[in-house]
Amino acid sequence: MTRRVTIADIAAAAGVSKGAVSYALNGRPGVSEATRAKILAIAAEMGFVPNRAARSLSVSSAQAVGLALRRSARTLGIEPYFMELISGIEATLSAGSYGLTLQIVDTVEEEMEVYRRWWAERRVDGVLLCDVGVEDRRLDYVADLGLPAVAVGGPLDGARIPAVWHDDADPCREILEYLHALGHRRIARVAGFAHLLHTSTRDRAYAETAAELGLDAMTTVHSDYTGEQGARITRRLLTSAKRPTAIVYDNDVTAVAGLGVAHELGIGVPERLSIVAWDDSPLCRLTHPALTSLTRDITAYGAQCAEALLAHIGPVPPSGEAPAFSVQFQPAQLSPRGSTGPARD
Amino acid sequence: MTRRVTIADIAAAAGVSKGAVSYALNGRPGVSEATRAKILAIAAEMGFVPNRAARSLSVSSAQAVGLALRRSARTLGIEPYFMELISGIEATLSAGSYGLTLQIVDTVEEEMEVYRRWWAERRVDGVLLCDVGVEDRRLDYVADLGLPAVAVGGPLDGARIPAVWHDDADPCREILEYLHALGHRRIARVAGFAHLLHTSTRDRAYAETAAELGLDAMTTVHSDYTGEQGARITRRLLTSAKRPTAIVYDNDVTAVAGLGVAHELGIGVPERLSIVAWDDSPLCRLTHPALTSLTRDITAYGAQCAEALLAHIGPVPPSGEAPAFSVQFQPAQLSPRGSTGPARD
Repeated sequence: MTRRVTIADIAAAAGVSKGAVSYALNGRPGVSEATRAKILAIAAEMGFVPNRAARSLSVSSAQAVGLALRRSARTLGIEPYFMELISGIEATLSAGSYGLTLQIVDTVEEEMEVYRRWWAERRVDGVLLCDVGVEDRRLDYVADLGLPAVAVGGPLDGARIPAVWHDDADPCREILEYLHALGHRRIARVAGFAHLLHTSTRDRAYAETAAELGLDAMTTVHSDYTGEQGARITRRLLTSAKRPTAIVYDNDVTAVAGLGVAHELGIGVPERLSIVAWDDSPLCRLTHPALTSLTRDITAYGAQCAEALLAHIGPVPPSGEAPAFSVQFQPAQLSPRGSTGPARD
Repeated sequence: MTRRVTIADIAAAAGVSKGAVSYALNGRPGVSEATRAKILAIAAEMGFVPNRAARSLSVSSAQAVGLALRRSARTLGIEPYFMELISGIEATLSAGSYGLTLQIVDTVEEEMEVYRRWWAERRVDGVLLCDVGVEDRRLDYVADLGLPAVAVGGPLDGARIPAVWHDDADPCREILEYLHALGHRRIARVAGFAHLLHTSTRDRAYAETAAELGLDAMTTVHSDYTGEQGARITRRLLTSAKRPTAIVYDNDVTAVAGLGVAHELGIGVPERLSIVAWDDSPLCRLTHPALTSLTRDITAYGAQCAEALLAHIGPVPPSGEAPAFSVQFQPAQLSPRGSTGPARD
């Protein structure tokens, strides 16, 4: 039975009072340098680890970062994005001896209440805000609280909290130019939540590029990113009078569901339908044909978001420069695979 | 700018010393009952929330539960099991005002070191152990530490920590009897990690049932649950001289990959190959045909595991009875879909 070494154990071993041990461990006056050195040596030898709660009290740090996710269990379970993001966040935090505190919430009100409580109780030193919206009350809310926060998404014009983001416009241009070069003229899109900032960025970029290329107006249908909606929207698109010859999706899961519907309807991919996914989790390579996708390193992105947050939580660096307020991450790139080909219909 | 209300603020408002406020808030002697009542009223009026670190110090509770996952980022990203499990765990913890602290580790040694540090620094009040092995050093390790823990899996004969588990043997019997009734005689299995307890339970149950049914010896190939291995193993099985007419998989991801390989080889599902998945995440309904699967409510399972842990962390209930040491969760059940049919080859 391993028992935690306490201050009392060290005091007994060193033949001093518990108060003296406490002074020595906390670097405070009250013991001679010789006694301090002796106590620290004994503490190290006994494998003493300071109680986090006690340390947290003195340095006023929870050594933890909070992440509140506003998605349902079913969505989180199947959406590879979040677990890859968490994995990258966690790797950075872990290297910096920070813990990751996770909470799943239903509404934005509940999410803001979680931030308030976390900060009031000092459960976290900062938070990462996911799913940044076009209008996002959370940004001012956490700034008002004084809670250090970094937005996972952007860019955020005039916001009071830093953001780590990647350009979503260029990849949309790349997709459309690629499909246009393959001869596709009727292209539809199964998009994500309309209220999210990156969805709106893509909406605009696709519309502009389609106009430049002289494509028919793109049919865009917004979804909640689930396979159920991806399948239903795809089924409607493929059974409409002006069937698209290519469909682009805003995530992996809806694209995989779309491929399933094409199989179901006997529409060959890529012979009669080209499919482009976004995120390129391993899901895209499980299917047959494998899905052409926008590839981005979500794990590295999560790591960079966590680094930005730690920079804002931590002390001002020796240079005196404040950490960057807006960090642009590398954009996604097109990975062509078997699900795209020349338009034939 | 909202600032946290401090003990000094309350002391100033009440016209007493900070020490008096501290005594009053902590229910300790040192102030009169009248003063205590006045201080508590003022603290409540000012919206005072006790600093968690300070409270944690006094009640010796971190109000957090730890979860260390020993899987790679890529696996965690695509495996719906973990996010569904986390979601269920988190719902229970949240209702009990506990936080969930997450860490991803590479090795069992690293995982045990995380437990030691978490406990030594009182970052968590208890942990949930996933991926229970046939031989599992972690069980004695956390028991030796005195760290409250519950195993997510079992049953664990003679273990010193409680377990929440479900029977994996009966569902294996159900699958084989179902495929046997459909006329399948050459059945293969793409299994999970051989060292995991539930894999070994399934290994034994499939072998016994196959023998009882007089089936040819089942070919079982163990995998790491990834789509890559699921695809490679399925390709080898389907191109072997004695091609199986049915393949059962130990998770969703390998089953989806297996279906992709069948498409790639032009082997009709279910006409020439039946496929059975396990876990029944929404992935199973994205494909065409939808996958027959063993269904279990992983989110509810996670919730029950967290409940068991909180029962062990918490005070002894009024009845004086200790919480249950081994809790059996409802077993998985077969959900037949389009990927299984009569054997024709």
